[in-house]
Formats: sequence, C-alpha cells, structure tokens
Amino acid sequence: MDLLFGATELLGTVAFAVSGAMLAVKKRLDIFGILFLGVVTALGGGTIRDLLLGHTPPRMFYNVEYILVALLSALTVFFAIRLTHGQGLWSGNAADTLLTFSDALGLGIFAVIGTQAGIADGFGDNAVLCIFVGMVTGVGGGVLRDMMCADIPFVLRKHIYAVAALVGAGVYYFLCRLGVSSGISSMLGMSCTVVLRILAWHYRWNLPKAQNPQETKSI
Amino acid sequence: MDLLFGATELLGTVAFAVSGAMLAVKKRLDIFGILFLGVVTALGGGTIRDLLLGHTPPRMFYNVEYILVALLSALTVFFAIRLTHGQGLWSGNAADTLLTFSDALGLGIFAVIGTQAGIADGFGDNAVLCIFVGMVTGVGGGVLRDMMCADIPFVLRKHIYAVAALVGAGVYYFLCRLGVSSGISSMLGMSCTVVLRILAWHYRWNLPKAQNPQETKSI
Amino acid sequence: MDLLFGATELLGTVAFAVSGAMLAVKKRLDIFGILFLGVVTALGGGTIRDLLLGHTPPRMFYNVEYILVALLSALTVFFAIRLTHGQGLWSGNAADTLLTFSDALGLGIFAVIGTQAGIADGFGDNAVLCIFVGMVTGVGGGVLRDMMCADIPFVLRKHIYAVAALVGAGVYYFLCRLGVSSGISSMLGMSCTVVLRILAWHYRWNLPKAQNPQETKSI
Repeated sequence: MDLLFGATELLGTVAFAVSGAMLAVKKRLDIFGILFLGVVTALGGGTIRDLLLGHTPPRMFYNVEYILVALLSALTVFFAIRLTHGQGLWSGNAADTLLTFSDALGLGIFAVIGTQAGIADGFGDNAVLCIFVGMVTGVGGGVLRDMMCADIPFVLRKHIYAVAALVGAGVYYFLCRLGVSSGISSMLGMSCTVVLRILAWHYRWNLPKAQNPQETKSI
Repeated sequence: MDLLFGATELLGTVAFAVSGAMLAVKKRLDIFGILFLGVVTALGGGTIRDLLLGHTPPRMFYNVEYILVALLSALTVFFAIRLTHGQGLWSGNAADTLLTFSDALGLGIFAVIGTQAGIADGFGDNAVLCIFVGMVTGVGGGVLRDMMCADIPFVLRKHIYAVAALVGAGVYYFLCRLGVSSGISSMLGMSCTVVLRILAWHYRWNLPKAQNPQETKSI
Repeated sequence: MDLLFGATELLGTVAFAVSGAMLAVKKRLDIFGILFLGVVTALGGGTIRDLLLGHTPPRMFYNVEYILVALLSALTVFFAIRLTHGQGLWSGNAADTLLTFSDALGLGIFAVIGTQAGIADGFGDNAVLCIFVGMVTGVGGGVLRDMMCADIPFVLRKHIYAVAALVGAGVYYFLCRLGVSSGISSMLGMSCTVVLRILAWHYRWNLPKAQNPQETKSI
C-alpha cells in the first residue's frame, strides 16, 4: 500500500516535471531553464504545502529521489524533442495534448496527497484546511511555473482547473471521513480530478464570465 | 471592542476581495478566476504575515468566516456586474473609483492589523519588524493579485501606495507605544493610510523618478 | 574572521540592492519603487532561506542594518543617476555592466552564505539541502525582483546564472566537508560563482536549447 502510494507520488512528480519542461521549451528557454522549471513545477506545490503546515525544511530536501526524478523527467523531455527535431512528439497538437494530460495527472495526484498531509498532521476535523491545502498542493507548482514565465497562471485562465483539484480533494476528504479506505478514496479522488479536467479541456467547457463592455469596446 | 475589531477586519476582507474580483473582471477571467483572485487578495497579506511570524497553519484556516466572506464579496461583484450588464457600476470611471476606494480601505485596515499582530507576538520593542510586517500585511494580497495577473504590482507603479501603508502602520505603532489606547490608535492609523492614498490618487501626486535618458530615447 | 564575514554579507546586500534599484530605474519606477525593489532584491533571498529553514521571524528583522544598507544603496543609485542626468554612469553599456557585476557579486556571496546557514543549522550531512538552499539564497532575491517587474526571471533567461550559484555553493560545501577552513572555502566558492557568471556574460556562453520548430515558424 505504501509502495503503491509512493509510486503514485513519483508519477505525479514525473507528470508535473514534464509539464514544466514542455512549457520551458515552448518559451525557448535553455537546458537549465528547462530543468529549473521542471523542478519548480514538480516540487513547488509540495513545498508550499510544507510551509503552510509548518514543516521546515520542506520534505523535498529529505527525499532527494523526488528532485532526481524531476530532473530526469525534464531531461528526457529535452532529449526527446531534440532527437526528434521536434517532429512526432511536437508536431501538430501532440505537445499540447501531452502537456494537458501530464498536467491533469499531476493535479489529481497532488490534490489528494495534499489533503492526506493535512489529515496526517491532525487537522482531519478541519475540512476547509484539508481541502484547501490539497488544492494548493495541486495547483501550487503550476502557479509558480506560470508566474515565472510571466504568464497569467493556468489556474486563472483554464476552464475548470482549480475546480477540478477542489473536487478531487473534496471527494478524497469526505470518503476518508466516511470510513472508506485511504487507497480507494485516493483512487476515486484522483480520478475525479483527472476526468473532470480532461473533459473540460476536450469539450472546452467554460465557466461563466461577468460582462465587461468597457473592455470589450477597447478590444 | 473586540467586536469592533473583528468587524473592521471583516470590512478589510470585503474591501480587498472586491478589489481582487474587479481586477479579475477587467482581465476577463471566468467566475472561478474571480473567486480565486478575490480570496487571494483578501487573505494573501494575512497569510504572508503568518508565515513571516511563524504561525502555521495560517490563521485563515481556523477562521473560516474570512474565506466565506471573501467568496461572498467576490460573488457579489460577479452578479452586480452581470445583472447590470456592466451599466451603472461599470460605466465611466465608477469601477476604477470603487476599485481604488475598496483597495485603500483594505490597505489601511490590514496595515494596522499586521502591526498589531507583530506587537501581540511579543516583538513590540522591534519597531522595524512591527511596521514592516504591517506594511507587508497591507500590500501582500495586492502584490500576489497583480503578480498572478502578470502585471507589475500596483505597489511599484502607483503613487504613494506602500508609503501610505507604512505611514498608517507607523502611526499606529508609535501611538500604541506612547500609551494611546489600541482602539484610537487603530482608527488614526487606518485613517492616515486611507486619506493619504485617496489624496495621492485624486491629485495624482507623484514621487520623483530618476532620469533615464537611454530609455526615454528608445521610447 | 567574523568581521570579514559580516563585511562580505553587507557587500552582497549592497550589490543586490544596486541591481534591484537599477532595474527599477530601467522600468521607470518612482523613488519608492526603487527603494522597494532594492530591498526586495537584497533581502528576498535570505528571507526565503529563513522560511525554508524554519527561522521565523526572518533574520532581516533582527539585523536592521541590512535593511538600512539596502535602502541607502538604492538611494545612492537614485541620486547618482539623477545628478549625472544619466550621463557617465548610464551612458552606453556602463549601466548594464554595473548591473551584471553587482548582480554576480551578490549571487556569489549569497550562494555561499546560504550554504553556510544550512550547515550551521545541522544539516551538514545533507548535501542536496545545503547546496540547494545556497542556490535559492543566491537567486531568490533576483527571482522576486524579476517576477515583480513581470519579467521572465533572469535565472531562466540568462546564460549560466543559477548554474554559477550552484557551482559556488557546491565548491564551498565540498571544501568545508574536506576540512578546508570556512574562510578559504568561502573565498573560493564566491570566486567560482563570480568568475563563471562574468565569463558567461562576456563571452555570451549559451547552454543548448531544445529544438522547437513550431515556435520558430510562428516567429
């Protein structure tokens, strides 16, 4: 069970590192920028979570394998794109699709892990804290990634992004509280986030906007 | 007295949530972006303050009413603009004026509350710490809001913004140290910030810039 | 020895405050923006380090001289540019050169100091933690500076920037572990960072990029 859990966390790390590295490639950063953004995206959410919960130094420093896995994933993206001269992997919309899927997977995994961390720290009675920390763990790495690229974060632009993290964290939290085993709750929570995010992306679901005629005129 | 204090803090939360939500509307974000930016603006400053002072998890997780109030305020902005089709509230400069006033009010309230928190933690002898933490509490939410929108923060662009927070925090701190009651000191500190900020905005007071001929030529 | 160490840290503070102030001038910010960005650049790295290591409130609040030195350095930049009407100091590439040199010096000094702090906190056995904290201390202030100016951070764009901080932190760490005195290790670590960074800047060394034909076409 612990092994499965550890494997899932590594998978989330890989997924986010890939999404960070791919954005870095898109922004035409060099290999260091690719590695840096991969690591920030993969470990940023967990580090923000640790700071919020008062775990210092953050856990990433004790579990060096996460840094290594993130570096390796980013490096793989670099060489994959370089060796294929951007063909195959990068042609058409393949890159966008890969970026979205890896991001959705990381989002689901980290939202659940963050909620778990809140419960493990003894805040299980505080639903707001646990679910919010879960959401922040999920979206934190991506927010840092986008802020560093001077983009308005994904989380503010994309249809149903943080909402998906919230739903996953909430499903996990309430199933756990109802006595469902942590393994099953995890799987269901993650799946909710991933499915919701991918559906929203595929069908271009939109949340409503407030009217803003002033802006509309000026554009 | 405590009731009055709590009411003031809630008012600051409302004011900042409104300013965050209005910027989100201006940036054409969807309803989630509006809620998210409202919450970040309203609770960001206090969360940075708690992290600096070592209070983890931050207080926002224990006082859930602040999150709810921020969400409700942002939601109100959303529906107000939607129902009026942007007329009335949004026509002409009304929106800008509302944004500036609500932002000034939040700034004054949070600058004083932040300074208070520093004193309450036993750092009353360290004027730099208390006043600086007060300023950061005041400007922190707005800085996060602007960085997330990929804007150069308000605090760096606007005439006499953080300076107003500094003055309010300083007035509160020194009045308290001189033995004036916390209630009166609070009122005076807040008023200084709000009045200074609004005057600077209305009369377009400018602080001096360094010459920069190179840039001037290139523009 | 302690005196020499303190002097070096003050020098790093001056160097980073100057780099922050010069960027603020370039961005045409007013005097408050110049002071604010000077302080954030000079003290940001150390504050992030303190938060990561769990030292709250951060040390900058106890050693007020650092804030004062940063303010004074930024103020000097402001008046130097104003009094010379941007001539001399600002003409041609002099400003860019000064910005790069002061930034490189701050980078080297803070990378070593950050590594030292990790060792002093008893994490000497954890090479990844010490070197990573050193790098973050070195690049943190500049990253905050650039994010506040809505630029893609230096650290992601510039040739061999964070790499230089990593090398300096690594050299210091391993020399210390091998029993070399802290003074000599510091000097060698700092020098490595500064020399590497200046050489990379002067010869425009580039790290490889991944191909990105899609982007190339669109530009």
